[in-house]
Amino acid sequence: MKYFKIYILFFLFIPSIIFAQTEKVDTNIMNQIRKEGLQNSKVMNIAFNLTDASGPRLTASPGFMRAANYAKDQLTKWGLVNAMLDPWGDFGKSWELEKSYVAMTAPWYKSLEAYPKVWTGGTGGLQNAEVILITAKDSAGLDAYRGKLAGKILIMDRSDTYKLSFAPDATRYSDEQLDSMANIKMEPIDTAAMRKRREEFRSRFRGEQSMLNSLKSMAIGEGAIAMFTSSPRNHDGTIFVQQAGPYKVTDPANFLDIALQWEDYMTIVRLLRNNVPVKMDIDVETKFFNDDTKGYNVIAEIPGTDKKLKDEVVMLGGHLDSWQGGTGATDTGAGSMVMMEAVRILKAIGIKPRRTIRIALWSGEEEGLLGSRGYVKKTFADPADMKLLPAHEKFAAYFNVDNGTGKIRGVYLQGNEAVRPIFQQWLVPFNDLGAKTLTISNTGGTDHLSFDAVGLPGFQFIQDPLEYGTRNHHSNMDVYDHLQEDDLKQAAVIVAAFVYDDAAMRETKLPRKELPKANPNGRGF
Amino acid sequence: MKYFKIYILFFLFIPSIIFAQTEKVDTNIMNQIRKEGLQNSKVMNIAFNLTDASGPRLTASPGFMRAANYAKDQLTKWGLVNAMLDPWGDFGKSWELEKSYVAMTAPWYKSLEAYPKVWTGGTGGLQNAEVILITAKDSAGLDAYRGKLAGKILIMDRSDTYKLSFAPDATRYSDEQLDSMANIKMEPIDTAAMRKRREEFRSRFRGEQSMLNSLKSMAIGEGAIAMFTSSPRNHDGTIFVQQAGPYKVTDPANFLDIALQWEDYMTIVRLLRNNVPVKMDIDVETKFFNDDTKGYNVIAEIPGTDKKLKDEVVMLGGHLDSWQGGTGATDTGAGSMVMMEAVRILKAIGIKPRRTIRIALWSGEEEGLLGSRGYVKKTFADPADMKLLPAHEKFAAYFNVDNGTGKIRGVYLQGNEAVRPIFQQWLVPFNDLGAKTLTISNTGGTDHLSFDAVGLPGFQFIQDPLEYGTRNHHSNMDVYDHLQEDDLKQAAVIVAAFVYDDAAMRETKLPRKELPKANPNGRGF
Repeated sequence: MKYFKIYILFFLFIPSIIFAQTEKVDTNIMNQIRKEGLQNSKVMNIAFNLTDASGPRLTASPGFMRAANYAKDQLTKWGLVNAMLDPWGDFGKSWELEKSYVAMTAPWYKSLEAYPKVWTGGTGGLQNAEVILITAKDSAGLDAYRGKLAGKILIMDRSDTYKLSFAPDATRYSDEQLDSMANIKMEPIDTAAMRKRREEFRSRFRGEQSMLNSLKSMAIGEGAIAMFTSSPRNHDGTIFVQQAGPYKVTDPANFLDIALQWEDYMTIVRLLRNNVPVKMDIDVETKFFNDDTKGYNVIAEIPGTDKKLKDEVVMLGGHLDSWQGGTGATDTGAGSMVMMEAVRILKAIGIKPRRTIRIALWSGEEEGLLGSRGYVKKTFADPADMKLLPAHEKFAAYFNVDNGTGKIRGVYLQGNEAVRPIFQQWLVPFNDLGAKTLTISNTGGTDHLSFDAVGLPGFQFIQDPLEYGTRNHHSNMDVYDHLQEDDLKQAAVIVAAFVYDDAAMRETKLPRKELPKANPNGRGF
Repeated sequence: MKYFKIYILFFLFIPSIIFAQTEKVDTNIMNQIRKEGLQNSKVMNIAFNLTDASGPRLTASPGFMRAANYAKDQLTKWGLVNAMLDPWGDFGKSWELEKSYVAMTAPWYKSLEAYPKVWTGGTGGLQNAEVILITAKDSAGLDAYRGKLAGKILIMDRSDTYKLSFAPDATRYSDEQLDSMANIKMEPIDTAAMRKRREEFRSRFRGEQSMLNSLKSMAIGEGAIAMFTSSPRNHDGTIFVQQAGPYKVTDPANFLDIALQWEDYMTIVRLLRNNVPVKMDIDVETKFFNDDTKGYNVIAEIPGTDKKLKDEVVMLGGHLDSWQGGTGATDTGAGSMVMMEAVRILKAIGIKPRRTIRIALWSGEEEGLLGSRGYVKKTFADPADMKLLPAHEKFAAYFNVDNGTGKIRGVYLQGNEAVRPIFQQWLVPFNDLGAKTLTISNTGGTDHLSFDAVGLPGFQFIQDPLEYGTRNHHSNMDVYDHLQEDDLKQAAVIVAAFVYDDAAMRETKLPRKELPKANPNGRGF
């Protein structure tokens, strides 16, 4: 096995092996992890508890708390210690849907699939209301509707059309795609250019957003009942839906903004364009929770056993919170269940790591990586001043899963070239499971950025896309059935192995990038 | 143009041209049809009226009658004559959904997309009910549930899992596929073998169906509220849904059988398997219509002008009725709108056909081609006795569209080899639009079979599949947005051309197959 490994390293990774030390990889433990994870998996049972049994897991909502308490209790049952719901700072109010009935009653009857967006108010009982078509192209155009919105439901005109799906919903990375990721060269990040692109992107939607905000203000002022919206990505009954607006305790309830199937939305638009009156029955009840405005992460540990190294920490995590169209099975129930399964595997095979292993299931990720940022800030450093707390020095690495239910194909190195030869060797026992690619690329939008922002090694795995972008991500189809059991098992095995390699086998902590400068105006990424 | 045509015929269709006469094709008229159909199309306006404006078009329902009356009036406005709702025989009672609210209230709240099946009764107001899981494998296994169904909602256990979509939803026929269709050899139909296959197919589901019927009887007897079902084809929010049972005036309302999203169905099953109680709010109102139990087709004509030939008839049609999950846009709003657009084109360019052109928009197709069978029986012959009525002799051909919204790629010859060289020449002006394939194959399930059954030439066009089987056929996604405008325009042009070629250009009627024998026990197909 050892011979085999060196053979692979020699032929595949020549540039690395010239400069890199050989990593100690315990073949026996790797086999045990693999056997426990692939043949005795509990990942789908964890999945059931985080999704079907808990419901949607909007941060701080009853569904989130059900899942968080299940996770805390389950981690404790498996033998982890210090399991807790750990407050990370002030979040705001949470929200839950209590009732939603939306049906077209004229020109004919149809009960509509409808998702009131998060943090909206309700209708105050059953209303029967006319829908009016807003054809304004900008805020000035809204004047034509002034005084006409009371008791109405609003819908914006639009003209996009359905595109046939000649490409499959599901894909896996091909060898060519993985090779091309592996061969990307590290280039200094041009933050000015990034900021410019971001600004250009935002300004494209600023006019539209500004009109929408004006319309909502008018709607609230005049006593309109609701408005319908639909993402251009909606098709075939898949509905993408997020929040309606702010959620601080001082914010009023947002105007009732309801996501519809794109097909239903367009039916209503066409009827109104053709002067056919459209009436709806609508009865929406929502509930806000103000009693505890703190946000909580779930934390638990497998303590280190090496006198010299047990204060050092290897972390693994995913975010537990979700949006509310589905039950956040792939975003990122998947990350949470893979991480829980990874520590279960390590406990089940009875490892005694030298460093402490700490799992974190974050909240507030969907609102801007809030849980991991809060945790990093209070534990390691605030990117705004970069005053390092003592734990910063003791931190080894953070491993994150948050790109859906697809199996692991490798790791984003996040610009840290020095870890490449290490991860290459850690991946060798799992090359046959499709995991062998290292890309110097940054990847955005997941909780590893909170660590990266204060100069700590934080990594997100490369995962097969499957149907994440086409069907699952922030949609009503982000539910248990769209999880891929074999992919999740593979991911849990590889995460468990990485955590073990780092926590039990290495003499020194992983190499770090240069410390970033304090960034008083930003969050560090 | 003529030279070009002969050139094509010579090289592509050598076997035919040796035996076949050259058909007269009027290039000028073909160009006019093409221009009117492609540049001045009204097909999407017809589509709007048949779908969005009418609603679902279950035979004899208010939605069907709205569409049928629109079609009759519109055909008259375009200058067709004898437009009427023509009764074809006794259908039964019709049905309409008046209200549907189905929501899970425990363990957490979710409003479900739910389609009560056609011809079910309602709940008699809002009910809150527990769902119980039926794990019986056969009718005997149901005994365990006796006495336990009152006030409950029933759901059957199942264990199928979601399959990722690595194949695209939409496809068009490739040249290879079309070539292979064209090269199929005609073989005598082995009706005994066909009957055997059909019987085997049915017997596979007989046990399951028999258990389901027993369960429904028990449910009605004990006062259960409803049952949930879900097609194994349901995924991503696409729900396939048809009828719950019989619809004769003497039949009682069927037990309330509600089609759910597959993902919601499985969530409920998993919760119950894990002993988590599931409760639902459910409020379904349905309405039956018994006042007129006759079925009606929409018929209209462009009269023939040739003294000798005007009593001969060329027919074109599609079925106007639909199921009720969507608005039957592709099944077969598409056929109806293409046929309406085809006659509009012919009127718009002012043709004076020698034979009479008659359009038929059938009803009762979904219940077994009832409208076309009734029409053929009263007009031409009953396949049971094959006593030919006078119109049988005067009939030229029937052209049908009922395979969704895809463009025309050719024609199923329905075993009538003698028409191949004729259709080949009729298709030449449209080869560049992708229509050039003739296959000797039979194709089933559409209204041309009613004509074929009494020895009259009836043809269904070959159409690109697009998303018909994967998303549209009998689903909630069979709506306006899934129509493909360019495909419909092409189809209308080719149908108009075929009808013109047959009604205005031919000296003799199309060759027929041998007359079938009387079939006292069957419907002829």
